[in-house]
Amino acid sequence: MNDDLTGVRRDPERTREAILQAAMGEIVAHGLGGARIDKIAERSGSNKRMIYHYFGDKEGLYVEVLDHALDKMRLAEGALRLDDCSPVEGVKVIVHFVWRYFLQNPEIISLLETENLQRARYLRASANGRLVNHQLVEKLSKLIERGRSEARFPADVSSLYVFLTIFSLCFFYLSNRYTLSTIFDKDLEDAGTLAHWEDHIVHVVLQSLC
Amino acid sequence: MNDDLTGVRRDPERTREAILQAAMGEIVAHGLGGARIDKIAERSGSNKRMIYHYFGDKEGLYVEVLDHALDKMRLAEGALRLDDCSPVEGVKVIVHFVWRYFLQNPEIISLLETENLQRARYLRASANGRLVNHQLVEKLSKLIERGRSEARFPADVSSLYVFLTIFSLCFFYLSNRYTLSTIFDKDLEDAGTLAHWEDHIVHVVLQSLC
Repeated sequence: MNDDLTGVRRDPERTREAILQAAMGEIVAHGLGGARIDKIAERSGSNKRMIYHYFGDKEGLYVEVLDHALDKMRLAEGALRLDDCSPVEGVKVIVHFVWRYFLQNPEIISLLETENLQRARYLRASANGRLVNHQLVEKLSKLIERGRSEARFPADVSSLYVFLTIFSLCFFYLSNRYTLSTIFDKDLEDAGTLAHWEDHIVHVVLQSLC
Repeated sequence: MNDDLTGVRRDPERTREAILQAAMGEIVAHGLGGARIDKIAERSGSNKRMIYHYFGDKEGLYVEVLDHALDKMRLAEGALRLDDCSPVEGVKVIVHFVWRYFLQNPEIISLLETENLQRARYLRASANGRLVNHQLVEKLSKLIERGRSEARFPADVSSLYVFLTIFSLCFFYLSNRYTLSTIFDKDLEDAGTLAHWEDHIVHVVLQSLC
């Protein structure tokens, strides 16, 4: 984090980014209710006045954190190039992409859980957040269209359902890993176990397209 | 809720139950951080002194609420009778059971989300909660064993993985229905859409066992 106050004054974009990163950490660790502005100020080498100046209030800051995280995922989705893949290979690439994205950006799981506990009231008020995932569904749609024309996929497949199947299998395992590991007394975050589940998701999704 | 104070005094079991129900509603609506003991007292027709007497503090009350919800699910899992079903029919019964259980008891989804945001620290301290789901995995294990001996299921199927596949597809759709409905501008809770997804889960799970 940035704790150089001279730098803060000189580079508003860097300050804003540092505040967003600190707010993300604080919200993920303590929830929206438990997150404290003075802690965010401390973590970002900033101050409360500056946070209120940039983001209005804690809820405004939370919406920006959520938007920022969803925007980052949207950009990563947009960068996926699948035109040279066969339909089956393309679906595999998407499964691995989604799984690894959640694994490497676990904060988006906490933010989506937090937002669902709030019944998506902040996402509804957000301009950019809702653009996430659309490109992924479109890419799936193109792959399915190609797979259908090659008679590799059945006629009645919905790209939204394939998307929801992939997300269910990637998200739930990771979002519920704490309770599941406790209930089954088994470390679901062990590297071998994670790799095994990733293979399983590929298997389930491709089987569902037979 | 019970607001008969004479009744409260006469029937401690009923009072305890009313407090637990009120606490569940308050925690689901406002999260663990936002739940207020005076609101729980008001909703249960009880008082703060009585709540502290029965449950110690807010965290003690939360652990009981979580235990109570998981215990209720465990009992429902135990009541499933599958001995007369074919292996395929038995798996279908389990999918429908899990889906409808979450649909009819949505509070368990919020509680598990809340508990995962806390990294399962309360579940780890709970005596009964961790017993949930074990019977379901055992029932799946028996069905898979029978399906294997009849050469209907492949040799390498793990009952835990089938359980996780079913739970992923049932839980994620419902836990994330607020953000998903917002992102795709589509009501995922519409009765027809819910029924369609339930059919899809059956299809995906049975295909994964081919």
